[in-house]
Amino acid sequence: MQAVRVFGLAKLQSSFSRRVSSLVEVKYETIAGKRAQYNVAVVQLNNPPVNSLSRSLLSDLNVTLKNISSSDHHIHGLVIASNVKNSFSAGLQLEELVNTDRNKLSQYWSLIQDCWHTLFTSQIPTVAAIDGHCLAGGVIIAVATDYRIASNGDFGIGVTAARIGVIAPPLFQDNIKHIIGSRQTELMLLQGKVFTPDEALKIGLIDEVHCSNEDIISYACRSLIPFMETDVRARTNMKLSLRSKIIQKMELEREEHNEAFADFMLSPPVQEKLVSFIKTLKKQ
Amino acid sequence: MQAVRVFGLAKLQSSFSRRVSSLVEVKYETIAGKRAQYNVAVVQLNNPPVNSLSRSLLSDLNVTLKNISSSDHHIHGLVIASNVKNSFSAGLQLEELVNTDRNKLSQYWSLIQDCWHTLFTSQIPTVAAIDGHCLAGGVIIAVATDYRIASNGDFGIGVTAARIGVIAPPLFQDNIKHIIGSRQTELMLLQGKVFTPDEALKIGLIDEVHCSNEDIISYACRSLIPFMETDVRARTNMKLSLRSKIIQKMELEREEHNEAFADFMLSPPVQEKLVSFIKTLKKQ
Amino acid sequence: MQAVRVFGLAKLQSSFSRRVSSLVEVKYETIAGKRAQYNVAVVQLNNPPVNSLSRSLLSDLNVTLKNISSSDHHIHGLVIASNVKNSFSAGLQLEELVNTDRNKLSQYWSLIQDCWHTLFTSQIPTVAAIDGHCLAGGVIIAVATDYRIASNGDFGIGVTAARIGVIAPPLFQDNIKHIIGSRQTELMLLQGKVFTPDEALKIGLIDEVHCSNEDIISYACRSLIPFMETDVRARTNMKLSLRSKIIQKMELEREEHNEAFADFMLSPPVQEKLVSFIKTLKKQ
Repeated sequence: MQAVRVFGLAKLQSSFSRRVSSLVEVKYETIAGKRAQYNVAVVQLNNPPVNSLSRSLLSDLNVTLKNISSSDHHIHGLVIASNVKNSFSAGLQLEELVNTDRNKLSQYWSLIQDCWHTLFTSQIPTVAAIDGHCLAGGVIIAVATDYRIASNGDFGIGVTAARIGVIAPPLFQDNIKHIIGSRQTELMLLQGKVFTPDEALKIGLIDEVHCSNEDIISYACRSLIPFMETDVRARTNMKLSLRSKIIQKMELEREEHNEAFADFMLSPPVQEKLVSFIKTLKKQ
Repeated sequence: MQAVRVFGLAKLQSSFSRRVSSLVEVKYETIAGKRAQYNVAVVQLNNPPVNSLSRSLLSDLNVTLKNISSSDHHIHGLVIASNVKNSFSAGLQLEELVNTDRNKLSQYWSLIQDCWHTLFTSQIPTVAAIDGHCLAGGVIIAVATDYRIASNGDFGIGVTAARIGVIAPPLFQDNIKHIIGSRQTELMLLQGKVFTPDEALKIGLIDEVHCSNEDIISYACRSLIPFMETDVRARTNMKLSLRSKIIQKMELEREEHNEAFADFMLSPPVQEKLVSFIKTLKKQ
Repeated sequence: MQAVRVFGLAKLQSSFSRRVSSLVEVKYETIAGKRAQYNVAVVQLNNPPVNSLSRSLLSDLNVTLKNISSSDHHIHGLVIASNVKNSFSAGLQLEELVNTDRNKLSQYWSLIQDCWHTLFTSQIPTVAAIDGHCLAGGVIIAVATDYRIASNGDFGIGVTAARIGVIAPPLFQDNIKHIIGSRQTELMLLQGKVFTPDEALKIGLIDEVHCSNEDIISYACRSLIPFMETDVRARTNMKLSLRSKIIQKMELEREEHNEAFADFMLSPPVQEKLVSFIKTLKKQ
């Protein structure tokens, strides 16, 4: 681990600084609502050039999210963003999916499931501030939050998996359906479609396109106020209830889903296609 | 019970007059469709100043709805509206939720469940004519009907429960999802959001904003014609089938849901928050 | 069976020519994508004057679809369209529903279920090119495909069943919900509503209104390219997973659904209403 960059509240800084790495940075903002002041943790992915979801990044992200979500830190909201220019996250680290064995692949997939679960079930309201490409696994992170803001930039948001022979497994399909409905999910996944921020807004994949000069992270912090001003018990009770089918499915069937994903990914034609796609990328 | 105000068809009047009170008024309109004349019952809530869903109102409403829905009265459609200026219904009577015991709370909640069930499963097409604030429990009444019209006024429609520490339980969440989808349901419930009529139209929470000079109740009566002109057997068969999951859940799990609601509501921090909120309201 | 009209690829022609009839015509187009050339089968219904889904048409359609969907023919996409002016399909052949017995009705319904199942589970991307009225059973065919294009014409799209006393059974309700959500499904079915192409676009019942001078079938063939350019394994895996609940329900409960449909249709009041409706149609 390299030098840890944590800014803001001194007390919080000490409790987190042990756990974050150069790949996942955390800073804190204090936001004034109508009812109170709120502490917001800003988590920034920092894995240049495109914020690939590497094993180390996922592991660090998972620890960070779990820490912030535990209630004893007086954190009221969470922004997930990028510290890399032009990329929120380009998705899975494809190298983790090839020349691997079932055990290693399974561990990697389990990290994704953990991050997703922590975000999707968080008591703390969460927002994704998307200021660059948000593809495949990047979308899985984004849809696990409570609110999605994209800047008005020249980048794409979508799940391209089908184009390179990879699948978005059932649980993530369910999460995407929860956000944009079954028809738009089907179109996006079966065409491997990538949307502009405006198109993504139209289908509900994001909630706002942010156009002003305000920094997207400040803007995202403020977008949490309507959530933070509600009662934490009532809000959390309803959040978990509204998402209960998806959460239960994840908790009961995660091993099974992990196995099915490995079966699909390790089959020779899928491996072949992926290896050849990675070669193409490296030539570019 | 105070003097009963029932207007219209003499025969119908006699059968209902025993059961309605000053809190729930019923009148009848005859509407000309292309195929036939249709009798529409107009049920108006009359509990000033804001049509709180008091125990008495719910009890009277339930009897009224059950009577109208039984087929022997030759009623083809039902409008639910308000007789109180600026308010369709502001929701639950909060006083019923505090300084109470499990038994009383349970009875009160059961009345809400009954009204909702009668409306949601009605063979007769139903429409909500919303001419003023429609909040929390008011929305639960509205989404249990087949069609929602709001006048083009300066009022709000939404479920504010989370703001005051109350929950909209799973069954009502399911009904709202059925109307506006899971994403918009989540946003409304987790932010305690209130929409203008135009905003409510945009997310599908209402079906029409009524702008002309025509009385909203006449307009609502006419909006039932497309439903009333279809075959009652085919229409009812499909209505119950389209809503079967929600109805079955209600019928099988209503006691359990009632218990879970009481558990949540009677917990000390929820009671504390509610008592303090009611005090604030009274000071205003 | 009359003379078979099959055009296009000689090799494909021979394998299909035995199975198609005058009621279901097949021709082939080769389309250039970015990655490859794709062979598209164009299936045209040809049962004037309104493409009623007669027993013979359904039987021929079913064989045709099964043949095309089997992978050994190197077909990459499928267009379903009409060869009859002003009509995609007006729906079920009503005469099959009256003066019948349970056994015959059951066989007829089973043919519909088969066609629907073959289309809905097809590995090959499918599109409906709708160039005229698409009603009731016609909508069931259309929603079973992956993409729906309607020309910008003066015709209607909708499920009118409730108007004539017929039901769209639960499985087809589920398929329609999958496309347009539960609220719009409810409105369409309970009002027996018919939409213009522009209205159908707005609620998502079709995906595009085709306005240019290009032949709608050429246009539909090209609309398959984004699907055909993805990986067949990944795309099919996700398609079947996204639709798994509906497919499983069909496979497990088709007999039961077939029985329930027969029970409803054979009841005396439904038969009476249908006979009288057919008489009205014949007088016109």
